[in-house]
Amino acid sequence: MKIVLDAMGGDHGPKVTVKGAVDAVNQYGVNLILTGDEAKLNEVLKQYNYPSEKIEIVHCGDIIENEDKPVAAIRKKKDSSMVVALNLVKDGKADAIISAGNTGALLAGGLLILGRIKGIDRPALAPVFPTYKGTSVLIDGGANADCKPRNFVEFGIMGSIYAEKVLGIQKPKVCLVNIGIEEGKGNDITKEAYKACKNAPFNFQGNVEARDIPDGYTDVIVCDGFTGNVVLKLTEGVAGTIFKILKEELTKNPIRKLGALMLKSGLRGFKKRFDYTEYGGAPFLGVNGALIKAHGSSDEKAIKNAIRQAKIVIENGVVDNIKNEIKDLGADIVE
Amino acid sequence: MKIVLDAMGGDHGPKVTVKGAVDAVNQYGVNLILTGDEAKLNEVLKQYNYPSEKIEIVHCGDIIENEDKPVAAIRKKKDSSMVVALNLVKDGKADAIISAGNTGALLAGGLLILGRIKGIDRPALAPVFPTYKGTSVLIDGGANADCKPRNFVEFGIMGSIYAEKVLGIQKPKVCLVNIGIEEGKGNDITKEAYKACKNAPFNFQGNVEARDIPDGYTDVIVCDGFTGNVVLKLTEGVAGTIFKILKEELTKNPIRKLGALMLKSGLRGFKKRFDYTEYGGAPFLGVNGALIKAHGSSDEKAIKNAIRQAKIVIENGVVDNIKNEIKDLGADIVE
Repeated sequence: MKIVLDAMGGDHGPKVTVKGAVDAVNQYGVNLILTGDEAKLNEVLKQYNYPSEKIEIVHCGDIIENEDKPVAAIRKKKDSSMVVALNLVKDGKADAIISAGNTGALLAGGLLILGRIKGIDRPALAPVFPTYKGTSVLIDGGANADCKPRNFVEFGIMGSIYAEKVLGIQKPKVCLVNIGIEEGKGNDITKEAYKACKNAPFNFQGNVEARDIPDGYTDVIVCDGFTGNVVLKLTEGVAGTIFKILKEELTKNPIRKLGALMLKSGLRGFKKRFDYTEYGGAPFLGVNGALIKAHGSSDEKAIKNAIRQAKIVIENGVVDNIKNEIKDLGADIVE
Repeated sequence: MKIVLDAMGGDHGPKVTVKGAVDAVNQYGVNLILTGDEAKLNEVLKQYNYPSEKIEIVHCGDIIENEDKPVAAIRKKKDSSMVVALNLVKDGKADAIISAGNTGALLAGGLLILGRIKGIDRPALAPVFPTYKGTSVLIDGGANADCKPRNFVEFGIMGSIYAEKVLGIQKPKVCLVNIGIEEGKGNDITKEAYKACKNAPFNFQGNVEARDIPDGYTDVIVCDGFTGNVVLKLTEGVAGTIFKILKEELTKNPIRKLGALMLKSGLRGFKKRFDYTEYGGAPFLGVNGALIKAHGSSDEKAIKNAIRQAKIVIENGVVDNIKNEIKDLGADIVE
């Protein structure tokens, strides 16, 4: 098994990606390829101890920046760390790719270089969503702003496979994000999506209202990419604002400060539950290869966890499982 | 000025609505009409002291239940507390109506009995959204799951008037909920909505990502009713889950319990910021009359605050301001 990491991607560059890679090698014994500027990568690598045969560098002279137009960047920057990494997976020289770089470019690269799995109309981002009860998977996290009913069926299938194989949830419960519980509620697209999901080959349990998502009401949260992106970002925003207000309230006077000190470990445990760096990145499911998008602001722990996640995705044959499930489905979901 | 309260509406019935009414009369000196079962209302009323000339009862023999089909209920239950209350506003005998009853029925009743303001295609719910910086108004909170571009312009106009006249925000900043900041981001409908809003007569400041809503990035949060409902309910769900986890963490051992005790007032202040009962209800803007939907689970404080809110809506001529603004706009927004 070999995992390729776009070592130039992300807000913090090689300093963080290389450290995450070293930690993953030491902790999980994985074999890695790093794509990027060889001199820069070696400069960071030489600071650490690790089994050197486990990290290979493939030099690339170019970088896709966050400001680059996705499709144009993939087409023109052939020697970028991201495109080279994608081609390594396409050519069978690596089993999975991780990048914390330009999201749009990575998704475009997934579609253009790896291609879609036959039978999948719309690959989708499937980040883990931390809940009160544990973790759910949300799909689509933002790859497809507008969706057709059949796309929701694909999301349900892929999300179920990911929840089962990677999160270890048996017979995961799948629900459609909607503004009411009963069938017939919602906007035009969710009404159609509900009908399509009723006959789909997964454990469909109807609608979930947004209010019940954080508690862990459903294992797989299915929605279009617009709604999914709103759900992810709003959750981040609400949690961030609550932490900010909480901190202010708890430091207003000396008694409160003392109280807060006594609660330090409790508050730390509390905050950890919402820490995205614990959960790796978001797989882009439905492309013909294992592709994980790490958060742009990933630190070394997030990179390390994304590598562990890629390892689990490979070990459990997530991509092949999706291929088989979609093949078995045959013409059923083709409109 | 006279405000009519559907005293049978809401999960807790007259016990709560009547107490809220009495408190509002004593605190704000308003004149109220209560619609509902006279005997039941008097039974609660007689427990309290208040200037009796300020509360009038209009007896109704029927109630619209939460399970009733909205349009059918409005058409058939002519003697229900909700329909009678709506007719009092229509006939000029009251200046505003408040109900905590069946939301769908209340919105249908608003449209069927009060009617739309000329030039408004889609009236919308406009609840207050508590933020870090203060309060924003979200429109549409769930009345219109599918929207046309012109509806977003109407929402922006009505939301701006409400933010200015009721929340006291000068030249309120209006943003469109979207999944990216730049123009051209989003799904098909938000791309069109953005174009329509650019030329609209309010302080349009582009897109807002859901992440930035809780901090108070924008005064008026414009979106379709599906997105709005997801935003409201998810905020409630995330906050609820965080409070639950926080409570667990803070009571895990005696030291933490002691620390939590020292923080009691701080935690209370913190929770109060997210307490919907502080903010009254959601006005249904765009109908030809002042209509406020109170939360189904409103307690007496929420009812009292909804009455105060109705008073401010009337005093500041919100309905007339919308009429004038839409009239001035003329043919501009008619497709």
